Amino acid sequence: MSLILHLERSSSQALYLQIAEQIKVQICDGRLPATAQLPTVRQLARQLQVTRLTIQNAYGELQSEGWVEATIGRGTFVSAAVRPQTIPPSITTLGDQRPTPDSVINDMIQLQQLETEPMAGMRSMAVGAPDPKLFPTEEFWGAILSLQSDWTSLVGYGSPQGDPMLRVEIASMLKQRHIHATPDEIIVTAGTTHALSMVVQALAQAGDVVLVEQPTYLGFLHILKEQRIQPVGIALDQEGPQLDALERAIQLHRPRFFYTSPTYQNPTGICATMERRKAVLELAERYGILIVEDDIYARLAYDTPPPLPLRSLDTNDSVVYVSSESKVLMPSLRVGYIVAPNALQGRLLSIRRATDLCSPTFLQRALATFLQDKGLQRHLKRTIPIYRRRRDALLFALRRYMPEEITWTEPAGGFCCWLTLPRTHALRDVHRAALEHRLALAPGEVFLVHPSRELHLRLTFSSQNEEGIRAGIELLGELISERLAKGNAEADKIYDWTPLV
Amino acid sequence: MSLILHLERSSSQALYLQIAEQIKVQICDGRLPATAQLPTVRQLARQLQVTRLTIQNAYGELQSEGWVEATIGRGTFVSAAVRPQTIPPSITTLGDQRPTPDSVINDMIQLQQLETEPMAGMRSMAVGAPDPKLFPTEEFWGAILSLQSDWTSLVGYGSPQGDPMLRVEIASMLKQRHIHATPDEIIVTAGTTHALSMVVQALAQAGDVVLVEQPTYLGFLHILKEQRIQPVGIALDQEGPQLDALERAIQLHRPRFFYTSPTYQNPTGICATMERRKAVLELAERYGILIVEDDIYARLAYDTPPPLPLRSLDTNDSVVYVSSESKVLMPSLRVGYIVAPNALQGRLLSIRRATDLCSPTFLQRALATFLQDKGLQRHLKRTIPIYRRRRDALLFALRRYMPEEITWTEPAGGFCCWLTLPRTHALRDVHRAALEHRLALAPGEVFLVHPSRELHLRLTFSSQNEEGIRAGIELLGELISERLAKGNAEADKIYDWTPLV
Repeated sequence: MSLILHLERSSSQALYLQIAEQIKVQICDGRLPATAQLPTVRQLARQLQVTRLTIQNAYGELQSEGWVEATIGRGTFVSAAVRPQTIPPSITTLGDQRPTPDSVINDMIQLQQLETEPMAGMRSMAVGAPDPKLFPTEEFWGAILSLQSDWTSLVGYGSPQGDPMLRVEIASMLKQRHIHATPDEIIVTAGTTHALSMVVQALAQAGDVVLVEQPTYLGFLHILKEQRIQPVGIALDQEGPQLDALERAIQLHRPRFFYTSPTYQNPTGICATMERRKAVLELAERYGILIVEDDIYARLAYDTPPPLPLRSLDTNDSVVYVSSESKVLMPSLRVGYIVAPNALQGRLLSIRRATDLCSPTFLQRALATFLQDKGLQRHLKRTIPIYRRRRDALLFALRRYMPEEITWTEPAGGFCCWLTLPRTHALRDVHRAALEHRLALAPGEVFLVHPSRELHLRLTFSSQNEEGIRAGIELLGELISERLAKGNAEADKIYDWTPLV
Repeated sequence: MSLILHLERSSSQALYLQIAEQIKVQICDGRLPATAQLPTVRQLARQLQVTRLTIQNAYGELQSEGWVEATIGRGTFVSAAVRPQTIPPSITTLGDQRPTPDSVINDMIQLQQLETEPMAGMRSMAVGAPDPKLFPTEEFWGAILSLQSDWTSLVGYGSPQGDPMLRVEIASMLKQRHIHATPDEIIVTAGTTHALSMVVQALAQAGDVVLVEQPTYLGFLHILKEQRIQPVGIALDQEGPQLDALERAIQLHRPRFFYTSPTYQNPTGICATMERRKAVLELAERYGILIVEDDIYARLAYDTPPPLPLRSLDTNDSVVYVSSESKVLMPSLRVGYIVAPNALQGRLLSIRRATDLCSPTFLQRALATFLQDKGLQRHLKRTIPIYRRRRDALLFALRRYMPEEITWTEPAGGFCCWLTLPRTHALRDVHRAALEHRLALAPGEVFLVHPSRELHLRLTFSSQNEEGIRAGIELLGELISERLAKGNAEADKIYDWTPLV
């Protein structure tokens, strides 16, 4: 049999990895079925004009991960355990035409759990979370072991405000973002979702209006829906939220607050300029409305240091600041934090005592120990270059494989990239088609408050390696091109159609 | 100097522990100031008519915990580090005349943190939580260590429904309560507060009415307040919620549900009879209202096995069941669970994704491992006799030290006992006076929805040893007797007073 593979000799990724990755893709999408025989090392080396060692390395990689089996004297075969799987039944709505933020969140969590099982055969560019293969597991385990002697004191009720030692470490990290908060001004939460949910509960009631960016974080839209609060979207451009739209919406809707993620926003990756940040603050001050700032992607800066957060520019105590290290370390720590205006502190703590009382002190203390030992800096030093190369691979692949009708954002940080497609009937189900080819993407509409004239997709580049990203975008480019061509043909057909009356 | 100590020779508690405990009390309340010299071993042995070894053991106990210092040739002195402390400033409202459920919850958490520091000098009978000295810390640490090889798979996003392995263990524990739920029908939460908060959010909206017992769990009242839901109280008697009051309230208020804790209720310790349970279910079925059953104290049965929960008697799928092992193991695990009617499952999971997304898988898996290894059974076998003795000590002390105007419940399980006092002006601040003597109690009114004709106090017997309980109740009895006498005197005075007009 013959394999069709495309090697990118100018890529920074080793040829053997490119080969292995493309074979995985073909196994996943069923082109290479279970027990199919692969070409011999000699054949494939000749076909691709590479050394036999390169092919041996590629096959070795595949074998070590369980994708193929080699029998001496017989050859290399796709593992019998690998079968063109149906999409896991638990992924119920990512491919639907009418997904909701909640259904997509649910699918994403399932997808991330599948990522630790390569045999599941899904390629996910749907989840905005760190690559599990890059988790600082060993070092964090060390932090856990170091707590043995304090263990007894860490298992009673913890402080609803959060472990004091962790708050000291968070206060010191916040200084790097030019935010000056004492440990007493910080509230530790069970992750960012929890922080945002508490802030919404503190500031708004059922029926109130809250301003969000358009598009915005889908988890936030789900929080608003569950609390029966009405979102109004403020259009984003490359420089941040549009000021005239923001001012009009403030005048029109008298919102409880404006939720914004100015730095490497999810889902667009957009980073608001300093000028825009100052103008947003100035507007908020003029109209006396609060801003809720989500800064969770700020540490993931690939080009230049990130701009200062609104909270650090705020002279009016009108910014509620929410962040977490879970986008950088491990989501399962479930630790986020809030720096709130003083007037709001008591209310937030009261809400915490009415929602989950407190978080496990043990994990908070382990994180505090990890931070104190400079584990975060070491981890960022190791992983930022990896994520930067993935971002570069994504932008390179988009330029190479996307038809010209498609545009996208160019994120300077974070994990997200936002694709804009023409709104044609044929493209409406492209995320569904991608899912059928085992490529998971997030459909754009779950990030939107108001309908958009265009179609959108959110791509994340955090969990695939460079070749995986290239192969994913190549597939997506093909799917889009096919549909555009078909859409044009149908448009032609419609155009040719003569009405009877 | 001479010490006034009362020994209880018929008590099951060793004499040396009675002596040590009473000296601690006197250090705490300032009768024995820092650096005060204690009687010599010989003097005190003669005074109390015990052996010198008994006194040596008592002093040794005090020395090992840091309460006293012994210098050979000079004698034994109260440690210089121990000073009659002011009440910790963080305990802000437990002694107030107008505490709220939230302020009392906050104080209780602080109190439990102080309990691991004997030098803080507080005796707490205010917190309904297990004694930190009885936590199964070593065995649980073993469960944590056993997870090292799975660690990487435990730090990504977890399932919003909870770790599947833990749900298997919970399903098997529920069988002991005659509840048949598959792991898929269980939702793990971040503790009971979180479970109750989610259930309220799922079932009621701002302005709705919910029925609760009178008195009821103060944390539940706080949850209702934060969600702007109106509680209506159903009087409890020794057999459970009063049926006529329940039926009237259902007819009058069309409540969203009835929250009940039929087994060793907090704050009363009352255990509803089987007849009453069936009648409550029958009423709920007749009027088509849901019941939310809180079963967290059921494992703490001191006399006979606990009656079956409502959920196990329910043939109508109308009971939402909430429980947790945190009252038995360690509160900081932050693990509770819900077994809900099928129609409610999706809604609860959606709310979970809008509040904290998921709990740390790592701690859930550690708990699953601990449960699988029968750690809970071993722990109960070890601790139930201890808590039973404390319950007995409490009831014995109440009979001995309380004036006859005072009545109390006789709990057959759980951690709580409910005192009823005549509503006189002089007794209104008795919990405050107790706090000034370093004895923390929970004022009854924070457990009440409607005013009560009497005054109440909640006493918990979980964290003090038997002598500590005896000493605490002796103090409380004195404070109440003093105030009753004073109140009677004042009543006499008022009676004597002749109006001018």
